[in-house]
Amino acid sequence: MLMSIHVTMHYRFAQPNIAFLALEAARTEGQSVLSEAFVAGDAELTRIAGDAGIGHRIWARIPGEALKLDYRATLEITRPAPMLGTLKTAPLPEIPAEPAPYLRPSRYCQSDKFTAFVGKRFGHLEGGAKVAAIRDWIEDELDYVPGSSDADTNVLETFAGRQGVCRDYAHLFCTMVRAAEIPARCVAVYGPDVTPQDFHAVGQVWLDGAWHLVDPTGMCTADALAVVAVGRDAYDIAFLGSQAPAELVEQTVRVTRG
Amino acid sequence: MLMSIHVTMHYRFAQPNIAFLALEAARTEGQSVLSEAFVAGDAELTRIAGDAGIGHRIWARIPGEALKLDYRATLEITRPAPMLGTLKTAPLPEIPAEPAPYLRPSRYCQSDKFTAFVGKRFGHLEGGAKVAAIRDWIEDELDYVPGSSDADTNVLETFAGRQGVCRDYAHLFCTMVRAAEIPARCVAVYGPDVTPQDFHAVGQVWLDGAWHLVDPTGMCTADALAVVAVGRDAYDIAFLGSQAPAELVEQTVRVTRG
Amino acid sequence: MLMSIHVTMHYRFAQPNIAFLALEAARTEGQSVLSEAFVAGDAELTRIAGDAGIGHRIWARIPGEALKLDYRATLEITRPAPMLGTLKTAPLPEIPAEPAPYLRPSRYCQSDKFTAFVGKRFGHLEGGAKVAAIRDWIEDELDYVPGSSDADTNVLETFAGRQGVCRDYAHLFCTMVRAAEIPARCVAVYGPDVTPQDFHAVGQVWLDGAWHLVDPTGMCTADALAVVAVGRDAYDIAFLGSQAPAELVEQTVRVTRG
Amino acid sequence: MLMSIHVTMHYRFAQPNIAFLALEAARTEGQSVLSEAFVAGDAELTRIAGDAGIGHRIWARIPGEALKLDYRATLEITRPAPMLGTLKTAPLPEIPAEPAPYLRPSRYCQSDKFTAFVGKRFGHLEGGAKVAAIRDWIEDELDYVPGSSDADTNVLETFAGRQGVCRDYAHLFCTMVRAAEIPARCVAVYGPDVTPQDFHAVGQVWLDGAWHLVDPTGMCTADALAVVAVGRDAYDIAFLGSQAPAELVEQTVRVTRG
Repeated sequence: MLMSIHVTMHYRFAQPNIAFLALEAARTEGQSVLSEAFVAGDAELTRIAGDAGIGHRIWARIPGEALKLDYRATLEITRPAPMLGTLKTAPLPEIPAEPAPYLRPSRYCQSDKFTAFVGKRFGHLEGGAKVAAIRDWIEDELDYVPGSSDADTNVLETFAGRQGVCRDYAHLFCTMVRAAEIPARCVAVYGPDVTPQDFHAVGQVWLDGAWHLVDPTGMCTADALAVVAVGRDAYDIAFLGSQAPAELVEQTVRVTRG
Repeated sequence: MLMSIHVTMHYRFAQPNIAFLALEAARTEGQSVLSEAFVAGDAELTRIAGDAGIGHRIWARIPGEALKLDYRATLEITRPAPMLGTLKTAPLPEIPAEPAPYLRPSRYCQSDKFTAFVGKRFGHLEGGAKVAAIRDWIEDELDYVPGSSDADTNVLETFAGRQGVCRDYAHLFCTMVRAAEIPARCVAVYGPDVTPQDFHAVGQVWLDGAWHLVDPTGMCTADALAVVAVGRDAYDIAFLGSQAPAELVEQTVRVTRG
Repeated sequence: MLMSIHVTMHYRFAQPNIAFLALEAARTEGQSVLSEAFVAGDAELTRIAGDAGIGHRIWARIPGEALKLDYRATLEITRPAPMLGTLKTAPLPEIPAEPAPYLRPSRYCQSDKFTAFVGKRFGHLEGGAKVAAIRDWIEDELDYVPGSSDADTNVLETFAGRQGVCRDYAHLFCTMVRAAEIPARCVAVYGPDVTPQDFHAVGQVWLDGAWHLVDPTGMCTADALAVVAVGRDAYDIAFLGSQAPAELVEQTVRVTRG
Repeated sequence: MLMSIHVTMHYRFAQPNIAFLALEAARTEGQSVLSEAFVAGDAELTRIAGDAGIGHRIWARIPGEALKLDYRATLEITRPAPMLGTLKTAPLPEIPAEPAPYLRPSRYCQSDKFTAFVGKRFGHLEGGAKVAAIRDWIEDELDYVPGSSDADTNVLETFAGRQGVCRDYAHLFCTMVRAAEIPARCVAVYGPDVTPQDFHAVGQVWLDGAWHLVDPTGMCTADALAVVAVGRDAYDIAFLGSQAPAELVEQTVRVTRG
């Protein structure tokens, strides 16, 4: 599948600032970057590898009081949507070093609190079938309500509040999957099916020796997603971190097929 | 119903101490104290009215390094078990001053976080039927696991963890009932059906203009409970608060019919 | 001191709504209401006594989709500013039923977590001098930053974040005073010295057998404050609680001397 | 410096179990393993690389109902204690991929909440001098009180509570250093100066392009510590994680010079 991405960003700051960006589609398994252009005015950029070696993040030193960005890319997505139900979980002792940290709780995902619930509700299932049931449960139980959460909302609040946006769906998904002793991480993505068009976050689970994208909001499938960055939770994959308070002037995200 | 209560307590402290006790069955609606005896050695006791004017609490000034208590009472319980399903909720503007504070969240009961869940799961029900459905849901969903919580566990953790003891059941019950805009408080009680015998906590809801005891653990019914103290949550109704760290030496609670 | 209060409020709702207001100056010790007028359009109002019997709250049944309020009052404030340093604390066993609940933690004020810090920093002081030192510490350590907190911010976050608005100052004050085993509550007030003019919240401590107003922001003194409502924390004294989401159209608070 | 380590562990489980161990001294910069022996009875062990590629963790499949371990090692520690005061911080855009994730908050370390406090208290300092001041502040302000925290205690509670054990000291240190925009991680270590002898946790900061061990409890210096594992916080470096509840039978840690 071919995918075109066009992002524009305009933020204002009270002072020269340093920002930390996760915006560019990664050169990683299942997707090829055919062309890309990244223009950021007078910001001085330093690229470093992203978490788990996937994609990269950008340190942007902004000399003035505004950041204006224009990012365009065309990609080919070659990964298939996983047949979750057929994938197998590894027993814990066969989980290698790379996915092992994603079994553990993180800032927003207190997965250690969910062991009993996950055991009770999904304990009769195994492997990908368990992950699929968790995904379905979240899509059924949560309402997608813009503005119902903020940067401070953690998964205990989301689980009780039953509302959220993509980050909250991804948090609850990763939390429950980790509580089921399956590695799970959060992924910043672009997708043409995200409605309304915006930056998006989904989950990724480690089954049958590989990572598989899963969108608990039900908006997207893995074969129509472009990975930007992975991490333990939203804090690790934020599209924009900023040293000084940032004022949004304008931002657009347009992702299309073809 | 006649009920006999016998409590013994032996705590040790590193220094002279002040304790705050909620132990004696209240002289309140639905129960009469036929006889009682409270012996506390050399502790100097000051009784003050309990929260909402129900029962009393005892300030105990303990001159030495131990508190030894023996409390015995016989009661007649005359309140019937409520027919929850038939009781009506008042519209908010008809909730008077006395129950109104029990609509709000408290230390352990962040009921403000549960509005959407309670609306989703129980929104089709009204009044006592809604309360009964909440009670049944909690009994079904939670496992009673001694040691699964501590004095710091709040209701967000209980809701995710799906385990607890009587305080956690009562917290989740009060939380969900408050989120349904019905006043609810926590109540310290004695009951012959508490297994194993111990201090016990239940909920109390305000329906049809009166308070009604409800035990979300399913152990007890209102006609076989003796009220000690009421409050917003466990902090308000603790049987023992202590200024200095307290070491339990021995404690027994025996409650019998007749 | 004479004080004039003029409040206007205009909120919009998506549907007929019920609101819970704490707006009118209380008829309570240290202040007399000389005249007042409360106009609320077609809202149907029910007054109930406030927490601790102070002032009253209003249930407002709003038939349309907007609440428009105009409240005016003139008061005489007769209470003196307390000489905090000279006031005495009662030993715990002499704290009566009325202030006792205000020794305990609440939704936003986890005072049980602050015992060691308060002991360490203020343990050498007693009574009003201890309260005054806590007040001064908070004014020194916190920065008053509008927008730095929201309705969800609790006192653990405020203590770490060192920023807040009046509610956060009042929360930290009540928390530390309770951790020092002195009853403390939060109070909704009007004051001519609040800058910029707005609804305001302060603390109130129980010393020498009476309640004394203390403003940890340093803006106001007790002799220039009009009490509206008291409670355990901000949740109990909110000027506006609303069943449905409320959209602010306009709101003005003007409080003047004379 | 030569160091000898001897650890014995005996845990009991209700059923065959899987445990996750971080026990063995790492082969890493500043320390050489001269000899080691690890005996774990009938447990089937799988070693995987630790977080950040440092040391390794062990998956232990325990066929019976007990884990009995005996671990001995002799090491040479060659790293010097850092002269913290002279070390420089890199500007954010010069922080590379490896330390960058350790700028961010984690399960127990909500460093995003501490920006204002750290700015206020330590903002006048730079680099290693700032880190040293944070370390000293923590040693001064916290009391080392065994039993004052548990596996659930987070850094907001520690900061208010002013008590803790090594994990809490390390958490508060990493939190404040991250809030100062300097990478910091938690490290499981052995040290002959840990009193009483036990597993120990310290912090590690990234200054002048390298990681430096810092013990905020003041017990140990970097030249007398053996690194076992690194991570974002205590969850990542626990010496024992267990699938089933584990009952401690006996455990000894003996670390000596020479």
